[in-house]
Amino acid sequence: MSLLVTGSIGIDTVKTPFGVSENCLGGSAVYFSMAASFFCAVRFIGAVGADCPFDLAEVFADRDVDLTGLEVRTQSKTFRWAGSYQGAMNEAITDKVELNVLAEEPPTVPDEYKDSKFIFLANTAPALQCQLLEQIEAGAFVAADTMNCWIQNHIDDLKRLLKKIDCLIINEDEARMLANDSNLITAAKAILGMGPAVAVIKKGESGSVMCSADGEQFVLPGFPADEVKDPTGAGDSFAGAFMGYLAQHSRTDFESLKQAIAYGTVVASFTIADFSLTGLTSINKNDIDNRLGTLRKLTRF
Amino acid sequence: MSLLVTGSIGIDTVKTPFGVSENCLGGSAVYFSMAASFFCAVRFIGAVGADCPFDLAEVFADRDVDLTGLEVRTQSKTFRWAGSYQGAMNEAITDKVELNVLAEEPPTVPDEYKDSKFIFLANTAPALQCQLLEQIEAGAFVAADTMNCWIQNHIDDLKRLLKKIDCLIINEDEARMLANDSNLITAAKAILGMGPAVAVIKKGESGSVMCSADGEQFVLPGFPADEVKDPTGAGDSFAGAFMGYLAQHSRTDFESLKQAIAYGTVVASFTIADFSLTGLTSINKNDIDNRLGTLRKLTRF
Repeated sequence: MSLLVTGSIGIDTVKTPFGVSENCLGGSAVYFSMAASFFCAVRFIGAVGADCPFDLAEVFADRDVDLTGLEVRTQSKTFRWAGSYQGAMNEAITDKVELNVLAEEPPTVPDEYKDSKFIFLANTAPALQCQLLEQIEAGAFVAADTMNCWIQNHIDDLKRLLKKIDCLIINEDEARMLANDSNLITAAKAILGMGPAVAVIKKGESGSVMCSADGEQFVLPGFPADEVKDPTGAGDSFAGAFMGYLAQHSRTDFESLKQAIAYGTVVASFTIADFSLTGLTSINKNDIDNRLGTLRKLTRF
Repeated sequence: MSLLVTGSIGIDTVKTPFGVSENCLGGSAVYFSMAASFFCAVRFIGAVGADCPFDLAEVFADRDVDLTGLEVRTQSKTFRWAGSYQGAMNEAITDKVELNVLAEEPPTVPDEYKDSKFIFLANTAPALQCQLLEQIEAGAFVAADTMNCWIQNHIDDLKRLLKKIDCLIINEDEARMLANDSNLITAAKAILGMGPAVAVIKKGESGSVMCSADGEQFVLPGFPADEVKDPTGAGDSFAGAFMGYLAQHSRTDFESLKQAIAYGTVVASFTIADFSLTGLTSINKNDIDNRLGTLRKLTRF
């Protein structure tokens, strides 16, 4: 089933204890699409400026990623992010950010994308997320990400968005902030009370928790990775595999959501093993399935 | 099979966002024994001063806890700890500590305890842990806890201890510090290289990771508890149920260790639901088994 993603394309400079990657390809829509493409066809929406050094058609050459929704704005500049990680690398420190094209009007949803049945709205201003969603036909399973600055400064827009989506995928600190509750489980329940039927809370290397409005729960540890070079894109890869699995099977029952979380966990563990997209471009679906089997074995008792 | 524990008995004052518990019963040996007593008989070693307001014989009245090794030192004062927790309560802040009897000579191991086959050395100076261990016959499965101050200031003693024990049970930050490695999995492997056959790394509400020298691994999330009032004693309860399960079945193979970790996780989740020992004294083995079933269901995919 058709999966649509709207998010950023970035020129990233990332510094970790394992090295520096300068002006490499990044952005939420890019990581998401690469991860999702192991599972299903992806409809991509995003914008770059004239300065973008990456040919996304080449990047996604062997994958079923439709770039009809990619806008190249000749008068604009591409989004740039410079960040670093220290120690256990659980938190990104933003060293520099240039919003550029992200500060402009959001891209238009192509007509041929409007019947998409699975939609992921990567992190951006919730008003823009609402605006994008309004362009799409009703009846899709919609998941969204958000972050602290929107919770702190645009809570009304965010609450409006939450009433329109089916699933919020959010970091643990942001979940606590949004719910104003330090207990993650009661925080998840409070978030469900704001609208979405499913709340997925990401805990970095410690895995994730998922709660549904029907009272179902699922907890999964992170994959015990002994090689972590660059956590950039882990959350978007997680979301990409999660939504990709659901779209592939065209299901959103809780058993399928659990399986999707497991795939998200595994694919993110490949992302963080190397800089930029290298961890994802160097594997195939078989590697993912094998690691899923390993994760199942590692968590069974 | 006989399980011996040596650790502290404390007069605790604990402050959390959910209230204050003044001069309540605490201490590693107390939490450990209460948790372990759901599984097997416990041989208790510890010391209190003349000021101890608690009658441990009464505390453990309905449980198979042998108090032959409890020393009441009439010239001494009982260990006291005052601590507080804030926000997500992931870290205890020590407001005041009076070592008192803990700063004296360690208790003597009673002759009738010396054939114990499962031994837990709760956190204390590693030199004392070695001294206690030397009093016991060889051939037991020995687990120990430690903490940052011993890693920082008594690393040689600790390294000597690590060569004598089978299992180290340690917090994630301490594991990283001990191994001087921010990756938890490679840190665990480095710790295994220091002596123990098994390393159990506790991650608070995020569960635990276990690695063996044979290359086996197990990861388990924390129980998704929606009621956390006081995390004090969680780690010692975890260790108590872990060792209690192993001693009950007299097994230390990896499958049994996994089951033991799951029981530790579940029992700790009861401990933190209330102040002092109330979370543990208000349940029975059936409650524990039921929650173990729930945890298994919550983690299966």
